[in-house]
Amino acid sequence: MMGTANTPVLLSHRAAQSRSSVIRELLKLTEQPHILSLAGGLPNPAGFPIHEIRKATQRLLDPSGEIAAKALQYGPTEGVEQLRHLVAERFNCPATGVIITTGSQQALDLIGRTLIDPGDVVVVESPSYVGAMQAFNGWDPQLVGIPGDRHGLRTDLLEERLRRGLEPKFVYVVANFSNPSGATLSDARRVHLADLADRFGFVIVEDDPYGELRWEGTEPAPLRARSERVISLGTASKILAPGLRVGWAAMPQWLVDPFVRAKQGADLHTSTLNQYLAHELLSDVAGQRARLGASVARYQQQAMALHSALVSELGSAIDVAPAAGGMFLWARMTADFIDTEILLQRAIEHGVAFVPGSAFFVPEQASMSREYLRLSFATLDPDSLAEAARRLKAAVESFA
Amino acid sequence: MMGTANTPVLLSHRAAQSRSSVIRELLKLTEQPHILSLAGGLPNPAGFPIHEIRKATQRLLDPSGEIAAKALQYGPTEGVEQLRHLVAERFNCPATGVIITTGSQQALDLIGRTLIDPGDVVVVESPSYVGAMQAFNGWDPQLVGIPGDRHGLRTDLLEERLRRGLEPKFVYVVANFSNPSGATLSDARRVHLADLADRFGFVIVEDDPYGELRWEGTEPAPLRARSERVISLGTASKILAPGLRVGWAAMPQWLVDPFVRAKQGADLHTSTLNQYLAHELLSDVAGQRARLGASVARYQQQAMALHSALVSELGSAIDVAPAAGGMFLWARMTADFIDTEILLQRAIEHGVAFVPGSAFFVPEQASMSREYLRLSFATLDPDSLAEAARRLKAAVESFA
Repeated sequence: MMGTANTPVLLSHRAAQSRSSVIRELLKLTEQPHILSLAGGLPNPAGFPIHEIRKATQRLLDPSGEIAAKALQYGPTEGVEQLRHLVAERFNCPATGVIITTGSQQALDLIGRTLIDPGDVVVVESPSYVGAMQAFNGWDPQLVGIPGDRHGLRTDLLEERLRRGLEPKFVYVVANFSNPSGATLSDARRVHLADLADRFGFVIVEDDPYGELRWEGTEPAPLRARSERVISLGTASKILAPGLRVGWAAMPQWLVDPFVRAKQGADLHTSTLNQYLAHELLSDVAGQRARLGASVARYQQQAMALHSALVSELGSAIDVAPAAGGMFLWARMTADFIDTEILLQRAIEHGVAFVPGSAFFVPEQASMSREYLRLSFATLDPDSLAEAARRLKAAVESFA
Repeated sequence: MMGTANTPVLLSHRAAQSRSSVIRELLKLTEQPHILSLAGGLPNPAGFPIHEIRKATQRLLDPSGEIAAKALQYGPTEGVEQLRHLVAERFNCPATGVIITTGSQQALDLIGRTLIDPGDVVVVESPSYVGAMQAFNGWDPQLVGIPGDRHGLRTDLLEERLRRGLEPKFVYVVANFSNPSGATLSDARRVHLADLADRFGFVIVEDDPYGELRWEGTEPAPLRARSERVISLGTASKILAPGLRVGWAAMPQWLVDPFVRAKQGADLHTSTLNQYLAHELLSDVAGQRARLGASVARYQQQAMALHSALVSELGSAIDVAPAAGGMFLWARMTADFIDTEILLQRAIEHGVAFVPGSAFFVPEQASMSREYLRLSFATLDPDSLAEAARRLKAAVESFA
């Protein structure tokens, strides 16, 4: 136990083994002003309701009103009642099953804490959201990646594994405009996945940060409408502002108490002020619809600009589908000598950045993913996106 | 693995074994309007800088300014730079060692996550802060309680245990106006504790939510000034407002990276907006001093009112020292037939509530603590505190 003040001998095994998120480390490297970054996962600040949050704060913190002291005081671990009810209406579920979290990230962590014993199987789509895998990995699961395609998780492959004896605690999906693949889980596969959950006795974690950022087509019915074994996650981060750190989880009743106790130990409760702010803005239904509409139109314009620029600059060297929503394009470099991790180094030299596909796969499958890249169109304007595509072309050509 | 949708068979062992905080469950029971509650741990909302937070939000969210978009966007896991630097100045430590947390509660949880392997020894003072024990227990330590008295942790008893082979990962203390005991660790014991940490190779977690709420005497030098093995925790909750959920931790460099990675998985980062708000208010040094002075004067008046009412109503039936700061009186019922858990039931019938001492001890020592009670004077006015003392007297007399 003895050691000098400089030795990390006191670290837990968990801490000593932890690795940083590849994306977040990358983001630091690509923050130089001359780089056009398609690597981030940030929403466009042009969509932040700055004016409305400012006005809402004025109303909430009116010293003569009753809410000011409440909004600044400790609050219930479950969350502010008004916001829980509003989320329950959006989710069409009982408010008693809704818990407000410090962003969806906390919900992912608390799901790990309450469901995962070391060695438990957790299924993620391959590729999957890095932050979710990081949160789950904190609880020592065996992460199993099941491939996805443009219609989301291959539930046929999942069923095959289940029949061969795979026993997951839960299956994690971003069912709408997934990060990174942009895929939306098809209606038929949702029916299939819900059926598998009920037959094989696992939980579905349905994470949905991007569902409302849709400009084409209609959303299939959510998984929570198809099974009682679903934990649904939502967040204010992409429809209001991530700086609030307000998310929510709707869960089966048997999970509520353990989840709340876990949250109590984790941070007592989510910022009361920010919960009231989220409630103020989201309960203004017409205003929220108008603001969101403007955001979605902007994302659509950006998505189309990046997609057409990639196609016209890179032609058959890249395989990339247009997006119907969300914040990302998921592309494949068709030349098999291009490894996107190496391409990234060249790209940075040419003043453009993206996230190589390997970041999004469980380690065993990372090598199969070297031809993929994730491109965010959310924060650059159309001209910059076109220039980014030109720079990417130059980086690709440097391989020839 | 099979089970119906209603079975909690999927819970992790950790979740299945968790218990709720006694205090938080009690708080729910004592929220009825006819009860004068001395049970809470809430700061007095009269001290909340409502007007200043409102004004600061106006400045920060000026749409023509540069900060608005930053304050609503994702931010670095470590925290907003300006706030880290401000905390570093307050702590007289390098800003690279300061991490902003979602309240001190999150810091306690992340300390558990980064330092505790199952079975590791963690020393807490007996009695100790319930929320800390709850956070640590999430990581399966062996919690060892070492008695404290009116000068804080009995470091002589700790040394005895260390010499007999106790090997703690860390020792947790609330060194100023401890919750629940109100005790301040004496200067001599701080020197001793720091020396023990260096000799025996453990870390000291110095949690300090109440240190600035002092109206008498001067604060001994902090433990971080005496050893490099100290993690110091602070919070905006008692000096600004708890609803912001902004806390901070200053730690040795070897802990920074693992701590940040753990926080990344836990909630990505603390609310950017609230960090900017805390920075705005705390960097107004003169304003903060004035506001805090008014709060401290109010707490002093309340503490004196409750103490004198207890002494005059209960006389020799109660042993309670006056407070020099903080939010709590810690009292002992001298009649050995009074168990404070049973007294609480009677007290609630008489319209007053407190927290029985047993809540604050590790389970093995809980039975030794049945004569103690924690009384918060923070939220009631002097007249109500006097009435609360009268009701407590009536409850005590019902035993005769």
